[in-house]
Amino acid sequence: MNDSLAVRYVGARTLVTGSWRTSPPGPGEVEIAPAYVGICGTDLHILHGDMDARIGTPTVPGHEMSGRILRVGPEVEDWRPGDAVTVMPLRWDGTCAACRAGHHHVCHHLDFIGIDSPGAMQQRWTVPAATLVRLPDTLPLDLAALVEPTAVAVHDVARAAVRKGERVVVVGGGPVGTLIALVARFTGADVRVLEPGAHRRRIAGELGLTAWDPDTDDLPRLMEEWTGEAGADVAFEVSGAAAGVDSAVGVLGVRGRLCLVAIHARPREIDLHRFFWRELTLIGARLYTRGDFEQAVALIADGTVPAARLISSVVPLAEAPAAFEALENGASVMKILLDCGPRSQGEPA
Amino acid sequence: MNDSLAVRYVGARTLVTGSWRTSPPGPGEVEIAPAYVGICGTDLHILHGDMDARIGTPTVPGHEMSGRILRVGPEVEDWRPGDAVTVMPLRWDGTCAACRAGHHHVCHHLDFIGIDSPGAMQQRWTVPAATLVRLPDTLPLDLAALVEPTAVAVHDVARAAVRKGERVVVVGGGPVGTLIALVARFTGADVRVLEPGAHRRRIAGELGLTAWDPDTDDLPRLMEEWTGEAGADVAFEVSGAAAGVDSAVGVLGVRGRLCLVAIHARPREIDLHRFFWRELTLIGARLYTRGDFEQAVALIADGTVPAARLISSVVPLAEAPAAFEALENGASVMKILLDCGPRSQGEPA
Repeated sequence: MNDSLAVRYVGARTLVTGSWRTSPPGPGEVEIAPAYVGICGTDLHILHGDMDARIGTPTVPGHEMSGRILRVGPEVEDWRPGDAVTVMPLRWDGTCAACRAGHHHVCHHLDFIGIDSPGAMQQRWTVPAATLVRLPDTLPLDLAALVEPTAVAVHDVARAAVRKGERVVVVGGGPVGTLIALVARFTGADVRVLEPGAHRRRIAGELGLTAWDPDTDDLPRLMEEWTGEAGADVAFEVSGAAAGVDSAVGVLGVRGRLCLVAIHARPREIDLHRFFWRELTLIGARLYTRGDFEQAVALIADGTVPAARLISSVVPLAEAPAAFEALENGASVMKILLDCGPRSQGEPA
Repeated sequence: MNDSLAVRYVGARTLVTGSWRTSPPGPGEVEIAPAYVGICGTDLHILHGDMDARIGTPTVPGHEMSGRILRVGPEVEDWRPGDAVTVMPLRWDGTCAACRAGHHHVCHHLDFIGIDSPGAMQQRWTVPAATLVRLPDTLPLDLAALVEPTAVAVHDVARAAVRKGERVVVVGGGPVGTLIALVARFTGADVRVLEPGAHRRRIAGELGLTAWDPDTDDLPRLMEEWTGEAGADVAFEVSGAAAGVDSAVGVLGVRGRLCLVAIHARPREIDLHRFFWRELTLIGARLYTRGDFEQAVALIADGTVPAARLISSVVPLAEAPAAFEALENGASVMKILLDCGPRSQGEPA
């Protein structure tokens, strides 16, 4: 039986679920049975049609996942059926100027699997073996579905070169912002999270993070109490909002670094005079490298990143359309996982 | 005779020249006889009244200079009358957060001499001995008046961490842009200058630099011919114009660095998505350190920076108002120096 359940974006703001016939993995490929797939903000953008110019329809979303190998294709060594894996969902050409400079993850012709080609929201998923990242047997697969966003956080903290003892402000306390705060804290930084949503601030608090409300807290006074006149060493802009950019620029002290994580589809007005006056640096950060991915696995596996606290709910793959809607409307939601297991769909295991 | 000629900004877009009574240098101070003083864009801003909120009137502009020591005050060691000097025109408090972090040049309470306190456009100028930078006896004093803007260029190239073999675009071919291009070339970079003014492009050409006209040249094609799809490694924004920022962002390849040199008084719309997508970095750069100043002296003294080629004219100090006007109207002007020597004012030497 090679038919399996899949979530498909068919255009026109519509997700459908249904069976999809799969073919055996080709040379260098493996077929995975995804266990859990996280829904990301990018998946919402796909549903909203914002990425229709980039993607072909129908397509399968999903790029945050964990699972086990079902079948390996010809010429695949090192991997066996049953191996627990996650996928670093990047395919680069290896020949462009970015790749030649060693920056494969921002290849000029990058194939982001789950956007540019079919993703993980299905029960059988074929990917190149080169994208696999091994998971420790001890790591529960629901937690492992958070490796991909954690790898984003690891990459961002590395791009900003956060050092022990530095004061770090994370603007935006959603899943990625919270993961950045946790990784920065692990690096030895003193971290504050700016987040208007009460639910997300509460989760930050449960994780031992101090979270401020940019709408009601007196940010200049709090910064002054915290840093004196020095300001923050690093700010992460994870909100995607114009006001978030202003906050991130405003909290930084002399030689402060602003790491730009969020996607700003429209140009933003930036106070360049402040960049000049305080010799600030703005650092763009995108995706991750394999090293970031492997560190993310380790941080979740050893509990440094308590991934379970970020999982708001786990719903069957077949209920993906309702789960997308819940995420969209949900001020009280962090990460929603889709359970791809046959049992959760009411099928025999 | 302690009266000496000085240029004074008296407010209301007015410069006057006249004599000013000076007092002997106090403890830790020296009195200098400025030889040459350059007119900088910042001096024009002072004349236009743009900095009235910051400066007291009347004040004396001028912060690019060379000269000789006339008198030394009490408690001054290491300096003698007749010594050839330039002045690094910064006075910091040494106690603020920026100073404590080692970034004295961007002190939170910086006194920029020539803006916040009286500058060099006078025949006798008293400054703290700590601001002096020694000039080699072999260095002509007219060339030494370009040490200060050259120190800006040295600082900017260092902030951008330009390396040998990198492709560098300088947006804006005025004095500072041209000096940045020369220092970057000395560092081993392959440099292009973007400058709309024909006169300034011609001077760049005489200095062996390739200059493009952003208004008429086909920039995407020229970039493609020069770098293939790679783009530039570094761009310097020295134009101060919104279009200059766009050009600087646009030419950069993956992981490119944009060094922000110009002052943008108003916020600018920035394509943050490009910063994300290509992992670009924006680096604010302001002023210089003592090390930058000393390297600037060396680069002019050994001819690496052929400062004479940047001097458009030398006019007597008493004619400063007309010289400011010439700079303001002058598409055909690079650097104008004021000659402070008594002979040039028709006085006995």
